[in-house]
Amino acid sequence: MKELEKITPLEVDFPKWYIDVVKQGSLIEYGPLKGTLIFKPNSYGIWEQIQLNLNEIFKEKGVQNVYLPLFIPEKLFAKERDHIKGFNPELATVTQVGDKKLDEKVYVRPTSEVLFADLFKKSIVSHKDLPLIYNQWANVVRWEKTTNPFLRSREFLWQEGHTCHANPLEARTLTKTMISTYAKFLKNYLAIPTIIGKKTAHEKFAGACSTYTIEAMMKDGRALQAGTSHYFAQNFSKQFEISFKNKNNVEEFVYQTSWGVSTRLIGAIIMTHGDNRGIIIPPKVAPIQIDILEVFANKNSKVHEVALLLKKELGRKFRVRLDETDKNPGYKASNSEIQGVPLRIEIGPRDLENNMVTIVRRDTLEKIVISIDDVKNEVPILLDKIHNNLYEQAKNRLDNNQVLVNDYEDFKKEIDNRKFVIAPFCCSGKIEERIKEETGATTRCIPKKMDKPVELAKCIYPTCNRKTKRYVIFARAY
Amino acid sequence: MKELEKITPLEVDFPKWYIDVVKQGSLIEYGPLKGTLIFKPNSYGIWEQIQLNLNEIFKEKGVQNVYLPLFIPEKLFAKERDHIKGFNPELATVTQVGDKKLDEKVYVRPTSEVLFADLFKKSIVSHKDLPLIYNQWANVVRWEKTTNPFLRSREFLWQEGHTCHANPLEARTLTKTMISTYAKFLKNYLAIPTIIGKKTAHEKFAGACSTYTIEAMMKDGRALQAGTSHYFAQNFSKQFEISFKNKNNVEEFVYQTSWGVSTRLIGAIIMTHGDNRGIIIPPKVAPIQIDILEVFANKNSKVHEVALLLKKELGRKFRVRLDETDKNPGYKASNSEIQGVPLRIEIGPRDLENNMVTIVRRDTLEKIVISIDDVKNEVPILLDKIHNNLYEQAKNRLDNNQVLVNDYEDFKKEIDNRKFVIAPFCCSGKIEERIKEETGATTRCIPKKMDKPVELAKCIYPTCNRKTKRYVIFARAY
Repeated sequence: MKELEKITPLEVDFPKWYIDVVKQGSLIEYGPLKGTLIFKPNSYGIWEQIQLNLNEIFKEKGVQNVYLPLFIPEKLFAKERDHIKGFNPELATVTQVGDKKLDEKVYVRPTSEVLFADLFKKSIVSHKDLPLIYNQWANVVRWEKTTNPFLRSREFLWQEGHTCHANPLEARTLTKTMISTYAKFLKNYLAIPTIIGKKTAHEKFAGACSTYTIEAMMKDGRALQAGTSHYFAQNFSKQFEISFKNKNNVEEFVYQTSWGVSTRLIGAIIMTHGDNRGIIIPPKVAPIQIDILEVFANKNSKVHEVALLLKKELGRKFRVRLDETDKNPGYKASNSEIQGVPLRIEIGPRDLENNMVTIVRRDTLEKIVISIDDVKNEVPILLDKIHNNLYEQAKNRLDNNQVLVNDYEDFKKEIDNRKFVIAPFCCSGKIEERIKEETGATTRCIPKKMDKPVELAKCIYPTCNRKTKRYVIFARAY
Repeated sequence: MKELEKITPLEVDFPKWYIDVVKQGSLIEYGPLKGTLIFKPNSYGIWEQIQLNLNEIFKEKGVQNVYLPLFIPEKLFAKERDHIKGFNPELATVTQVGDKKLDEKVYVRPTSEVLFADLFKKSIVSHKDLPLIYNQWANVVRWEKTTNPFLRSREFLWQEGHTCHANPLEARTLTKTMISTYAKFLKNYLAIPTIIGKKTAHEKFAGACSTYTIEAMMKDGRALQAGTSHYFAQNFSKQFEISFKNKNNVEEFVYQTSWGVSTRLIGAIIMTHGDNRGIIIPPKVAPIQIDILEVFANKNSKVHEVALLLKKELGRKFRVRLDETDKNPGYKASNSEIQGVPLRIEIGPRDLENNMVTIVRRDTLEKIVISIDDVKNEVPILLDKIHNNLYEQAKNRLDNNQVLVNDYEDFKKEIDNRKFVIAPFCCSGKIEERIKEETGATTRCIPKKMDKPVELAKCIYPTCNRKTKRYVIFARAY
């Protein structure tokens, strides 16, 4: 039993607040290798709920789950040049087994495009095999220099969908469908609002033709890329010779997409909803939705009886935890809060005299004293309210912190004000790099929907005189 | 659309039959790196069902899921000497990232005892933290020289449970509980009977104090180790300093266990139930439990109507596939059989005239013509019958192919007859090695329950004169 330590207030030091929250909330432990992470039950449980729910949604879209190998031979990876160039500096490389040197280097997958390409080549013969919509849940490795729990670690968990299509329209449509699916999932399950948009050429995935993204806004104003969907056209299929006989019996290369979300989403939950007492887990993905706490159970046997009864009854529909250890009630309540459990029910002898119990909401800390008989009906209503409240707060923050600018001095000021800054931009990669150096901000996306002037505007960067209709969101980002 | 090829009869060439079944049954594709495997939807789907059901069972036993890193620093792995000695020759080793050499070698986990030990050291303070029962679903890597799909590959998927206890009795009891849990799971979900027993010192897990196993019998008489559970006593806790304050406030080292099953189980399913038409998947873990096949739907619109209706109705309770493509019905039926789908429902215009459809069992190939209205009630009964029939057949095989011997010539003959041979054995590791060289048989286990002579007997090996009461099962094994 570890003592609970104080969490640094988020207004005082946001990065320290974040580390305190992940450590104190039973979310992680650091792995023995620098930059690796242990997912404890409270964070792995969130990932399991994300998996369960996304699998349901994927199934409706005809997605089939598969599992491909961890290892990629050097030669295979090198086939798509932009792709290997993008990933090479971060590739963990196996060169020996036991004491024996290998003949060929083997990479630990940082993503699986080339493995899927090799599988598709073997699997696809005719247009009757298309579309082919595969997905895998897997660990991937990118040897990052600076790491941060959930947000950037050397190994992370994700799902990566990979698809093949008989024509570009179908593939493009799927790319967009998947990014919308992610946006809806984040809204409906994680209570996180996002902005859907397209990445600039400079920020798109290595090897992709275009990349769509959902961008969320954290409590410190920084952006977090929460999911991506890529359209590859025939970039991989030509290199890997993934072809099919079309309806006219002519051999043609397939059109491809890939899309994914990762355990970054846990970081997004923390920094979207968390407060100075720790993480607040949205009810739909909370590993424990309800904590039942006995107050002075040793002095009153009815307390334990009612606790067991409620656990059984609520347990049919919800994920309920009853801590039967003799730890003191204050510790249990703090523990429940710091672990972000959406609701806790406190059962104490005084309330019980009137056949009542106390329900405490994690988001508002509001205490509701209600009759035991009403608990069953009230709990689902409260869980919905929590979800909606979390979403509304985050949505207001996102809506109220976007600003349109036309002047570079304003741009810099608003970036310092931690806003999402929307500006006309020529989309040159070189200028993007310069803006990043000067302000710390990167392009997040070219939003799908937005109110913006219709006439041509000068690029936001002072020395660039190009005119554009493209408005781009810039922000500092995780 | 690939042509279905003929499967080699299992009586003719069992190993070739096995490879034909895994390739033709849409179960695997080989990965680009030798010895690695791609799990296609039909095999990954079995693994997903195994996960779902085992997770339910684990939850009742208080198991909490976690996820630990893929990478183990060299120094950490070296702490338990027997453990590193056992695994060293198969350890995939990362020595560089991008073009930069690492300062310390990093191993890809072949199992995670040392990682859990490190976590436990950080997590456990007092007896109130015990027992701690963790499990992870993960990929592990063992660089095997000869590989075989599902049975032995360089990377495989598994679950590994790791626990800490305040006393040896509780830890020993859990070790046994888990092996029984696996035996029950194989019986009730995979329709595979097993023998529970203890491994000899020579065959136990590197670093364990004792190892329990469940051994199954494949159709060719070979044994397959289907699950193991290890008791570590304080072997790891002393090396890794995992201690707790006991009730008397005295610092003590914890007692540990670990236990696991892997994607080998898919191989066990194939070789326990498969026939000359391919795999037969036990209904409870079949990714598709029912195939609905339309016969001549293009000539009769009612066929499609009924198919959709049945899919919707059965889909509420079962995993149902309706192939709406225009592939011909013969191809679809063969495909359903070769993929091992337990039931298929054929809907054709002639049956429909009498409001009937035909249900075909995958195990017996029996065809049942029944009224559409009865399908809903009949399906669960048929699925149960299939499960029970598969189990009975396997159980009869296991029961009828064990033989007790007291003479080494008989021993060799019965091993050649592909039996599980039970013999009195001194349990010397050296003799075990010699018997393996001479007969190809290894010790499978010292069974928990068995009828055997009560008096002391001479060890089965001719030149060994030791007397023993220990009877051991020998067999050739996967």
